[in-house]
Amino acid sequence: MKKPLVGIIMGSDSDLPVMKEAAEFLDSFGVPNEVTIVSAHRTAKRMYDYAKGAKKRGIEVIIAGAGGAAHLPGMTASLTSLPVIGVPIKTKSLDGIDSLLSIAQMPPGVPVATVAINGAKNAGILACQILAAKHPAIAKKVEKFKQEMEGSVLEKAQSLEDMGFNKYLARK
Amino acid sequence: MKKPLVGIIMGSDSDLPVMKEAAEFLDSFGVPNEVTIVSAHRTAKRMYDYAKGAKKRGIEVIIAGAGGAAHLPGMTASLTSLPVIGVPIKTKSLDGIDSLLSIAQMPPGVPVATVAINGAKNAGILACQILAAKHPAIAKKVEKFKQEMEGSVLEKAQSLEDMGFNKYLARK
Amino acid sequence: MKKPLVGIIMGSDSDLPVMKEAAEFLDSFGVPNEVTIVSAHRTAKRMYDYAKGAKKRGIEVIIAGAGGAAHLPGMTASLTSLPVIGVPIKTKSLDGIDSLLSIAQMPPGVPVATVAINGAKNAGILACQILAAKHPAIAKKVEKFKQEMEGSVLEKAQSLEDMGFNKYLARK
Amino acid sequence: MKKPLVGIIMGSDSDLPVMKEAAEFLDSFGVPNEVTIVSAHRTAKRMYDYAKGAKKRGIEVIIAGAGGAAHLPGMTASLTSLPVIGVPIKTKSLDGIDSLLSIAQMPPGVPVATVAINGAKNAGILACQILAAKHPAIAKKVEKFKQEMEGSVLEKAQSLEDMGFNKYLARK
Amino acid sequence: MKKPLVGIIMGSDSDLPVMKEAAEFLDSFGVPNEVTIVSAHRTAKRMYDYAKGAKKRGIEVIIAGAGGAAHLPGMTASLTSLPVIGVPIKTKSLDGIDSLLSIAQMPPGVPVATVAINGAKNAGILACQILAAKHPAIAKKVEKFKQEMEGSVLEKAQSLEDMGFNKYLARK
Amino acid sequence: MKKPLVGIIMGSDSDLPVMKEAAEFLDSFGVPNEVTIVSAHRTAKRMYDYAKGAKKRGIEVIIAGAGGAAHLPGMTASLTSLPVIGVPIKTKSLDGIDSLLSIAQMPPGVPVATVAINGAKNAGILACQILAAKHPAIAKKVEKFKQEMEGSVLEKAQSLEDMGFNKYLARK
Amino acid sequence: MKKPLVGIIMGSDSDLPVMKEAAEFLDSFGVPNEVTIVSAHRTAKRMYDYAKGAKKRGIEVIIAGAGGAAHLPGMTASLTSLPVIGVPIKTKSLDGIDSLLSIAQMPPGVPVATVAINGAKNAGILACQILAAKHPAIAKKVEKFKQEMEGSVLEKAQSLEDMGFNKYLARK
Amino acid sequence: MKKPLVGIIMGSDSDLPVMKEAAEFLDSFGVPNEVTIVSAHRTAKRMYDYAKGAKKRGIEVIIAGAGGAAHLPGMTASLTSLPVIGVPIKTKSLDGIDSLLSIAQMPPGVPVATVAINGAKNAGILACQILAAKHPAIAKKVEKFKQEMEGSVLEKAQSLEDMGFNKYLARK
Repeated sequence: MKKPLVGIIMGSDSDLPVMKEAAEFLDSFGVPNEVTIVSAHRTAKRMYDYAKGAKKRGIEVIIAGAGGAAHLPGMTASLTSLPVIGVPIKTKSLDGIDSLLSIAQMPPGVPVATVAINGAKNAGILACQILAAKHPAIAKKVEKFKQEMEGSVLEKAQSLEDMGFNKYLARK
Repeated sequence: MKKPLVGIIMGSDSDLPVMKEAAEFLDSFGVPNEVTIVSAHRTAKRMYDYAKGAKKRGIEVIIAGAGGAAHLPGMTASLTSLPVIGVPIKTKSLDGIDSLLSIAQMPPGVPVATVAINGAKNAGILACQILAAKHPAIAKKVEKFKQEMEGSVLEKAQSLEDMGFNKYLARK
Repeated sequence: MKKPLVGIIMGSDSDLPVMKEAAEFLDSFGVPNEVTIVSAHRTAKRMYDYAKGAKKRGIEVIIAGAGGAAHLPGMTASLTSLPVIGVPIKTKSLDGIDSLLSIAQMPPGVPVATVAINGAKNAGILACQILAAKHPAIAKKVEKFKQEMEGSVLEKAQSLEDMGFNKYLARK
Repeated sequence: MKKPLVGIIMGSDSDLPVMKEAAEFLDSFGVPNEVTIVSAHRTAKRMYDYAKGAKKRGIEVIIAGAGGAAHLPGMTASLTSLPVIGVPIKTKSLDGIDSLLSIAQMPPGVPVATVAINGAKNAGILACQILAAKHPAIAKKVEKFKQEMEGSVLEKAQSLEDMGFNKYLARK
Repeated sequence: MKKPLVGIIMGSDSDLPVMKEAAEFLDSFGVPNEVTIVSAHRTAKRMYDYAKGAKKRGIEVIIAGAGGAAHLPGMTASLTSLPVIGVPIKTKSLDGIDSLLSIAQMPPGVPVATVAINGAKNAGILACQILAAKHPAIAKKVEKFKQEMEGSVLEKAQSLEDMGFNKYLARK
Repeated sequence: MKKPLVGIIMGSDSDLPVMKEAAEFLDSFGVPNEVTIVSAHRTAKRMYDYAKGAKKRGIEVIIAGAGGAAHLPGMTASLTSLPVIGVPIKTKSLDGIDSLLSIAQMPPGVPVATVAINGAKNAGILACQILAAKHPAIAKKVEKFKQEMEGSVLEKAQSLEDMGFNKYLARK
Repeated sequence: MKKPLVGIIMGSDSDLPVMKEAAEFLDSFGVPNEVTIVSAHRTAKRMYDYAKGAKKRGIEVIIAGAGGAAHLPGMTASLTSLPVIGVPIKTKSLDGIDSLLSIAQMPPGVPVATVAINGAKNAGILACQILAAKHPAIAKKVEKFKQEMEGSVLEKAQSLEDMGFNKYLARK
Repeated sequence: MKKPLVGIIMGSDSDLPVMKEAAEFLDSFGVPNEVTIVSAHRTAKRMYDYAKGAKKRGIEVIIAGAGGAAHLPGMTASLTSLPVIGVPIKTKSLDGIDSLLSIAQMPPGVPVATVAINGAKNAGILACQILAAKHPAIAKKVEKFKQEMEGSVLEKAQSLEDMGFNKYLARK
C-alpha cells in the first residue's frame, strides 16, 4: 500500500460508523489514507506523537472526529502545521451542538476546518480539495465528482417531473 | 513562600481579570497557590509538562479557565490524576455557552469539575472544600466562610426590611 | 459494611439507571458508598437533614443527580461544607440542557462540581480523585485506572489498524 | 401597616431593581406586601422558615425572583402549599435563559407559576389575579387595570395615526 | 354535575393525552372542571367568547395548553381577568422550547402562570393552590397531597436503601 | 394541464415527503403547480435558470424547501422578483433550527417568507393567500377553507365535551 | 391620501423605531400604507376588528411586528384571509429568538410569512413582491429596486478593489 | 503586484472590519491576496462569475465571510472545486449562531471549511496551511509562526509568574 496522504483519527471506536464515510470517500478517489483511534483524553501521549509525527510520515491533511467536549481536532491542530479538518460527532444528549462549538470556536492562532455535524463524507471531499493543488490527479477527480453530483440531481429531478411526486415516492 | 497547593492556569492573559478571583479567594484563606498561563493550543508541550508535573510538585487541585473551544481544563484532566476544576470564560460572541459545553461535556473516564460561566471565585471555594478533607485548618475556614456568608445576607435582609426598598436602593 | 465515604443521592428513582454508574464505579474501587433518594422538592426536610448530617456520619464527598429544574445538587451544596458533585440528568423535553444550567450556573459562594449530562460514571471517578489526597489506596487505584484506560484505547487502535475499519465494524 | 398578603422575596439585593416592580404594582393596588431577601443557597434555614411560616402569617401568595441556577422559587414552592410565582432574573452571561429553565422546568408535584424573564411587574399582576377570587376589592381593581391598559394603548394608537410615525417618534 | 371551577382548554385534540393529566388531578381532588378544545388560530371567535364568558360562568382558574407558536394561553389571559395557567406542549421539531418561550415571555400587563413543558399535572396542582385561598376544602387536600407526596418518596428511599440498587431496579 | 402558478422546489428528494404537502394543498384548491428538485449546492446553474425563468413561465409564487445550511430559498429569492416562501426542513442533528435560521435571517433587500419547520402545508396555504388578490376564485376558496377549518375544530370540541376526554381518547 | 394597500401594525409604540422601516420602504415605492398600534394582549377587541375589517377597507397585505411572546402576527393571520407578514422584534433578554419562534412556528392552517428578526424593511419589500402580481406599477419598481441594489454593491466592490481595504475603511 | 493566491470575499462592506484580519495575516506572510465584496443575495451573477473564474485566475483558496442567513461561503463552494473557508460574522440579534449554522451545516457533497465566529485571522492561517503543501516558502512561515506564537505565550507566562497577577494586570 502507498504511504497515506490523509490521516483519519477519532476519539473512540463508537465514532467509526460515522467517520468511515471519510475513508470510503478517499478510497473511492484512490487517495491513500489511514484510519485509527487517537483519544485526546485517554491517550494524550499518543495524540501528541501522532500529531507531531504526521507530517514527517507524509501525511498532508488530518481529519479528526470527536463528540461532546470534542478536543481532538483542536489539540491536533495545535500540535501540527498541517491543515486539520474537524468532524463534530452527534451526541446522545445535545445532538452534537456541543461537539460543533467545541471544534469550531477555536481561538486565534489555531484554526480547525470544521464541517457539519456527522459530516465525515464532506471531510473526505474537503481533504481532496486541499490535496488537489499539489496532486493534479486528485484535482481532476474533484472536478469530475462535482459534475457527476450535478448530473445525479438532474436525473432525479427529471424522474420526479416525469412521474409526479406520488409515483416517485411510491417507487422508492 | 510555601509550596502551592493549588495551581491556577488559564489559556490566555485575557482570562486573568476573571481568573484572579480564584487566587484572591485562596489568598484570603491563606492557601498557597500559583497563577500562570498555560495555553492548550499555543503551548501544548507546556500544558503537558505542567499537568504531568503538578502532583509531584505538591499541587493537590488544579483550577483551569478557558473560553470558546475551551480545551485546557479537559486536556489537563486527561494528563493528571488530580481533581481539575474547570472555569468556562464568557466569550464575546456566544456568551460562554460554548465554553461551558466544551468543559462540562467530557467523555466517560476524564471528569472536569465544572463551575458556572466566569465562576472563578466558586472554583476557589470548591478547591478549598476539596482540600478540607486533608487540611483541617482549611476545613475550619470553609465552615466559617459559609456562616459569614449567611450572616452577610441576613444583615442585608434586615436592612432592606428596616428601610424599605426605596431607601435601600437609594443608599447604595 | 464499612462506613460510606461517598453519598450518592438523586431526586427520583427514575434517575437510578443513570446514577447507579457512580455507585458501580465506586464499588469497583472498593470505596464504601451509599445510594438513596433525596428529593429537594418532595422531601425538603429529608434533604436538609441528609446534607446537614453527612459530614458527621463520615461522608467526604456527595454526588447528587437531578433533572429539569435540578435543585438537589445546589441545595445540598448550600447545606454542607463537603464538596458536592452534580450530575445533570437528561430530560425528556430539553435533553438535559435545563438540568445542566440549573446545576452549573450556581451563584458566587456555593459551587457545585458539575459533570456532563448523564455523566454519573465521571462523578464516581471525580469523587475518587477528591478522596485520593487523603486516602493513598484510592490514589493508587486512580493512577492505575488512568493507565488501564489508556491501554484499552491503545488496544482498540491496534485492532482497528490491523483489521481495517470494515472488519473491525463487522466484528463488533 | 396591615398584615401583608403577598411576600416578595429574592435571592440577592442585586435582584431588587427588577423585583421592586412587583412591590410597586401591589402598592398601586393597595395590596399589603413585604419585600425581603431570602437566599436559597446562602440562607437555606431562613428560606425554610420563611416558606414554612408564610401561610400562618397571613401571606396568600409568594413572589420569588432569582437568577442563574435559580432555586429559590422552586424550593419555596416545595416548602409551602401557597401558590408561588417565579420571576427569572436576567443574567450577565446567559441573559436569563438559565434562570427561566431553572424555574419553569419543575418536576411533577411542585409547580411554580413562572412569568417572563425580568417579569416582576407581571408577577405583581398575577398575584392580584390570584387574590381577586377571595378579595372582591382587588378583583375590581384588576378589571379596571385591564380597561385602563386598553385605553392607554388606544390613545397611543390614535396619536400615532393622527401624527404619522415621524412626528410621533420626534415627540417622544 | 356541579358548575366547573376550572376550565381546561387546548389548541388541538392532539394535546389531549398531555392535558388530560390536569383534569385527572382535579378529578382526584373532586374539583369540578371542564375540558374542551379552543383554538386561538382556528376558532378565534370561540376563544374570544370562552375567555370573555368564563368568569361569569363561575370559572375561577383557566388552564390553557398549546404547542409551537403557542398563543392560546396568552390570548386567553388578555381576554379575562382570571388567572391563566399556561402549559407548553412538547413539539415534534423543537421539543417545546418554542412553546415555552411563546407562553412565558408575555409583555408587561398580561401575565401567564407558565409551568414546565408538558407539565399539565402541575397545572392542575397549581390551580388547586390558587383555589385553596377561597375553598378551604381544597386547601386541606393540597396540604394532604404534599404530605403524601413526601411519604411516597420516603418509602421509595427506604426500599432502595433496604434492597440496594440492583435489587431495586430488578424489581421494577 | 394548465400552466403552473406555483413552483415547488426542494434541495433533495429526501425533502419530498414533507414538501408534497404543499402540492397536495394546492391540488385540493385546483391551483396548477409544479414540483421538482433544484439543489442550490449541487445544481447551481439549474437554480439560476429556474429562478430567472420562473416569472416568464407564468409562475407567480415559488415555494422552496431545504434543510441544514438551507440556501435554496434565499438564493432563489435573490434571483427572482417573485415572492418566495421558504420551508425549513427538520434535520437529523439539530431538528431544523439550523434550517430555520438559514432561511429566516436574510439580510435587508432579499426577504424570504419563512413558515414553520416542516410547514409545507402552510406554505401551500400562504401561496394561495398571495394568489388570491389577483385570482378571485382562489380568494373564495381561501375564505371557505378558513371557515371549514373552524367548523372542524368546533365539531371536535363538541364531541370532546359530549363524550368526556376518556371516551374521546379511547375512540380515536 | 389614497386608500392604503398595506396595513402596518405593531404591538407597542416601542416597536416603532424598527417597524417604521417597512413604512419608509413602502413610501419610497409610493405604495399607500397605514401605520398603527394594535396590541394582541392589551387591545384584543381592536385586533379582532382590525383584522376582520382590513380586507373590506382595501388592505391587501398586513405587516405585523411584535416581540417576546409575539402573538400579534399569528392572531391577525387567524382572523383574516389576507397574507400576513410577521416581523419578530429583537427583545432585551433573549435577543428576539423568542419573537422568531412565537411567529414562525405556527400550526397547520394559519401561516405567517416570517422575516428576519428586526427585518421590517424586508417586510416592506416582501409586501411589494406580493402586491406586484396585481399591480404592474409596483412590479416594475421591484425589478428596478433589485437592479439598483445590485448596482450599489457592485460600486462598493469597485471602490474597495480600487482603494484597498485600509483606505476604504478610513474613508467611511 | 503578483497574482493573488487567496481570494477574500464578503457579503457586505460592513463585514470588512472583521474580514480584513484575514488579509492582514496573509500580507504578513507575503501571500498575494485580493479583497472584495461579493454578495450572494444582491449580486448573484457576480458571485457565480467570481467562483467559476477564481481557479483559472490562479486563486488556490477562497475565504468567504458572511452573517445571518450566510449563503456566500456555501454557494461559492458549490460553484468551484477550490477549498472554501467560511467565516461566520457575528450578528446583531443572534450573535452569529445563525451565521455559524448557515455555514457549517452544509449537505453532503459541498463542504465549507468553517472557522470560529469572527475568526477571520484563523481563516488566513488556515489558508496558509492549505497553501503550504505546494508552496514550501509558506510552509516554513507557518512553522515559524507556530513557534513564535508559543514563544509569545511563554513570555507572558514568565512575566505573570515574575510579577504576580496584581502587578501584571496593573501594567497593562
